[in-house]
Amino acid sequence: MHNFKVGDSAIVNKTISEADIVAFAEISGDHNPLHLDAEFAANSRFGQRIAHGALVSSLISNVIGNQLPGQGSIYLSSSLKFRAPTFIDDTITATATISSIREDKPVFVLACVCRNQRGEVVCEGESVVLYEP
Amino acid sequence: MHNFKVGDSAIVNKTISEADIVAFAEISGDHNPLHLDAEFAANSRFGQRIAHGALVSSLISNVIGNQLPGQGSIYLSSSLKFRAPTFIDDTITATATISSIREDKPVFVLACVCRNQRGEVVCEGESVVLYEP
Repeated sequence: MHNFKVGDSAIVNKTISEADIVAFAEISGDHNPLHLDAEFAANSRFGQRIAHGALVSSLISNVIGNQLPGQGSIYLSSSLKFRAPTFIDDTITATATISSIREDKPVFVLACVCRNQRGEVVCEGESVVLYEP
Repeated sequence: MHNFKVGDSAIVNKTISEADIVAFAEISGDHNPLHLDAEFAANSRFGQRIAHGALVSSLISNVIGNQLPGQGSIYLSSSLKFRAPTFIDDTITATATISSIREDKPVFVLACVCRNQRGEVVCEGESVVLYEP
């Protein structure tokens, strides 16, 4: 069983480096020049390279897999809105908070939000995980 | 402007290696032993290590960022259900299909699905992107 309750929360911080973006492009194969090409990105609405949304949201996987509920978490679903770009060397704080727990089995619904160092929400949404530690 | 229409589709294939899982654990910081520890995973419901859901779904970012609609795509939202595990050396085919396009601006809704080499759906859902090539 588990000792988690609604309202429990966990946090992780990470500064997204250029190396992270390049590595994520390699793993995912997503070579969108908005992430990789300074000249292309300079002409975009953002004026500079941005991190892949899926790289930023991987910090939610981090909080869930390491802390809340932690090891043995199995992702059932994920729903996210991307609100603002993440630039190279932005520091992202990902927070997950338990919003509900099923009574019949250890399925957790978590409200998830990623903010940058200025406190702006860059993405937010909900993850559902099965917890089998 | 663009020449895309509802029903347009694109595909990418990738075999998820152990090295991909280790690299994704490093980038995301998600060190859940279900992904990394053979002994822990042997005692899980899956009986072996599985890929991070967020690693598998990064192939959707790949299809969108590279092909459909391609470079200059900006993620607005993503919603996914994880249906089945992905094991080391499974080959995943990610498919994105345009399900709607806004008339007033280049916002695409894409139906996305990832299948393994046995044709089983491992994850599926919807992504919304703004296209500014």
